Amino acid sequence: MATVNENFLKLQAGYLFPEIGKRKRAFAATHPDAKIISMGIGDITQPLAPAVIEAMHGAVDEMGKIETVHGYDDAGIGYPFLREAISKNDFKARGVDIDVNEIFVSDGAKSDTANIQELFGLDNAIAVADPVYPVYVDTNVMAGRTGLAAGQGTYEKIVYMPATVENGFVPEPPKAKVDMIYLCFPNNPTGMVATKEQLKKWVDYARDSKAVILFDAAYEAYISQPEIPHSIYEIEGAKDVAIEFRSFSKTAGFTGVRCAFTIVPQQLRAYTKAGQTVALAPLWNRRLCTKFNGVSYITQAGAAATYSPEGKKQVRQTIELYMNNARQILESLGKLGYKVYGGVNAPYIWLKTPEGIGSWEFFDLLLNKANVVTTPGVGFGPAGEGYVRLTAFGNPADVKEALERISRI
Amino acid sequence: MATVNENFLKLQAGYLFPEIGKRKRAFAATHPDAKIISMGIGDITQPLAPAVIEAMHGAVDEMGKIETVHGYDDAGIGYPFLREAISKNDFKARGVDIDVNEIFVSDGAKSDTANIQELFGLDNAIAVADPVYPVYVDTNVMAGRTGLAAGQGTYEKIVYMPATVENGFVPEPPKAKVDMIYLCFPNNPTGMVATKEQLKKWVDYARDSKAVILFDAAYEAYISQPEIPHSIYEIEGAKDVAIEFRSFSKTAGFTGVRCAFTIVPQQLRAYTKAGQTVALAPLWNRRLCTKFNGVSYITQAGAAATYSPEGKKQVRQTIELYMNNARQILESLGKLGYKVYGGVNAPYIWLKTPEGIGSWEFFDLLLNKANVVTTPGVGFGPAGEGYVRLTAFGNPADVKEALERISRI
Repeated sequence: MATVNENFLKLQAGYLFPEIGKRKRAFAATHPDAKIISMGIGDITQPLAPAVIEAMHGAVDEMGKIETVHGYDDAGIGYPFLREAISKNDFKARGVDIDVNEIFVSDGAKSDTANIQELFGLDNAIAVADPVYPVYVDTNVMAGRTGLAAGQGTYEKIVYMPATVENGFVPEPPKAKVDMIYLCFPNNPTGMVATKEQLKKWVDYARDSKAVILFDAAYEAYISQPEIPHSIYEIEGAKDVAIEFRSFSKTAGFTGVRCAFTIVPQQLRAYTKAGQTVALAPLWNRRLCTKFNGVSYITQAGAAATYSPEGKKQVRQTIELYMNNARQILESLGKLGYKVYGGVNAPYIWLKTPEGIGSWEFFDLLLNKANVVTTPGVGFGPAGEGYVRLTAFGNPADVKEALERISRI
Repeated sequence: MATVNENFLKLQAGYLFPEIGKRKRAFAATHPDAKIISMGIGDITQPLAPAVIEAMHGAVDEMGKIETVHGYDDAGIGYPFLREAISKNDFKARGVDIDVNEIFVSDGAKSDTANIQELFGLDNAIAVADPVYPVYVDTNVMAGRTGLAAGQGTYEKIVYMPATVENGFVPEPPKAKVDMIYLCFPNNPTGMVATKEQLKKWVDYARDSKAVILFDAAYEAYISQPEIPHSIYEIEGAKDVAIEFRSFSKTAGFTGVRCAFTIVPQQLRAYTKAGQTVALAPLWNRRLCTKFNGVSYITQAGAAATYSPEGKKQVRQTIELYMNNARQILESLGKLGYKVYGGVNAPYIWLKTPEGIGSWEFFDLLLNKANVVTTPGVGFGPAGEGYVRLTAFGNPADVKEALERISRI
């Protein structure tokens, strides 16, 4: 008798976005003339950079000729041309020494942040922020590293660290001993960032307790303040204790193209139960070689083009368009008296709902009165109750109109 | 203290192909003038079909315009245009009723055959053929569904079913009770196929013992004999007990593009330990939505083009080129007195090494004397000892030359 992985049955109904989609469709069905503007899901609206398009056309042509067709990406972890560009531009240019053999290219930061937990024992204690990107939690539920659902979207055995106004949305290391720590800065959903000093506390905690930090930096390209670190490896000692996730999705509009990468430093170690050290980079490499066959050559050629002089300029222009949206949102909602956070170093704005109005209630209000779709903060965890997340990824004209409509209610 | 998943430490050194690569490089280093011909790794050599190239150029152009750029593939399981083409052409055209909501598009059959085990409990007994595609085994080792390595590349707790000359390389269902059964037809590495009658025994076994069949049909496009089933679902009752894996990699030369799909029938069930039935399609959907973000729009547009009238014709031409290679290999080696199997309904030829010569020894002999790279059969399991696998994916001129060189030794 084939038995199922019963950990799947612990998962609570509905990933957040299907529920949003359902409410949006229900509203659209009863209001066919309404022009709904989405500020909810974190998806891009602007086209790929011309340099990327040109590189992908070139790569498609190569795939059509016998002399230049590419089969399997041999190593399965990314072509050297891409990994070298990443090492040079994303790290060495900022004074961070990340070698090509520490870079593993994949089809998405969602996949990587979901799959990384496979390298670890089921006995590790996990800490996540609250609110949190649900993938970190759900993948650990599926693996059996948690207990049962414990209400309000939480699970037993996970240590939740509230990110609140009081701590500036950057939790301190917990008193409880934890082994795997998911951090995301610039943060999804709050849009807030951690300073070097704040990250240093985490690195020190991890070094002291032999924990591993899983650092999601998918939004680092949106950092505008020069003192904010883009990489956890800007913190001394982090290479001993941290894995970092990066993505082209939000940096270069690759949500529909799929390319990302993960940094697993060669010196990073975890432990057997008996206390022997085990290097994690070879384990991650083995996982990728066994369960994955690399990323499309066409996609990798496009990703590499984001590092050309033209590509960089074009990618930067689109990020500035989105961040101009963010500024409009912050200004406009601030003038209306709303409390708004994030949006300075991230494409997300974390909006405090008016006193006494819950996340979903405010979501429904904005949908019904302004025909604007947001993301209820409580969908990211109990501490998100009383917030909604707005994204800055819209077309500027849509963002302007959405803000005008909100100002009228 | 972060502990590692110690199941990874059970894995035996070296995936097969790195070792082959090492020996090939070592030979090349000492014989810089040798023109090495690879008949080893199962990678394509012919370019993508013109219809695919055209569709991908079109999709790249769409990604460069604000009106037509695609972000996330909403459902994360493939665009309807592709899933509808699959349902119609791969299944309904053969009289097999597979609905679009049973089709889940992914980045590769390697990923899918690796990830599918996540849906199942760790207590399931696994059966695989010997020789076997190592991914089925290694992913179960990593998950903890096996015991320790047991010599000759095997692991405790896995039921190995020898595929030998005696059983025509198609094992019978085992006497032992097993719960998850990996089958691959047309087979990698033997190139042999199962008849409807043979598959029916498996379906009956699975129905009787409430087991699930994981059917890898990545090579179905190479079937030339009309009586051979292309899909497990051509067997009555299979939709209750089988998951099927398909790929564009070998069908349409997508090894460097990455697109595949998995069929999980809506009616397929597994069980909780308490004996309740659980539908597997929603579990697979949940896994994909949580751990994966879909396949590149450009890739999916290319995959869909393989179903256009022109695309079909072009894809078929390439398959015929490879199968003509296979015929040359069978004929030529047959004339030399070698015993050869497969190659009629699959791009793989399973060559019996001369009496008393082992797989690696024969591999080294062919590399040294003919400068031809093969794959040692023993790398796929103990029953593969005394065989090497040849692939038909070469350029015809290279295949011809390789055969001439082999005939001279």
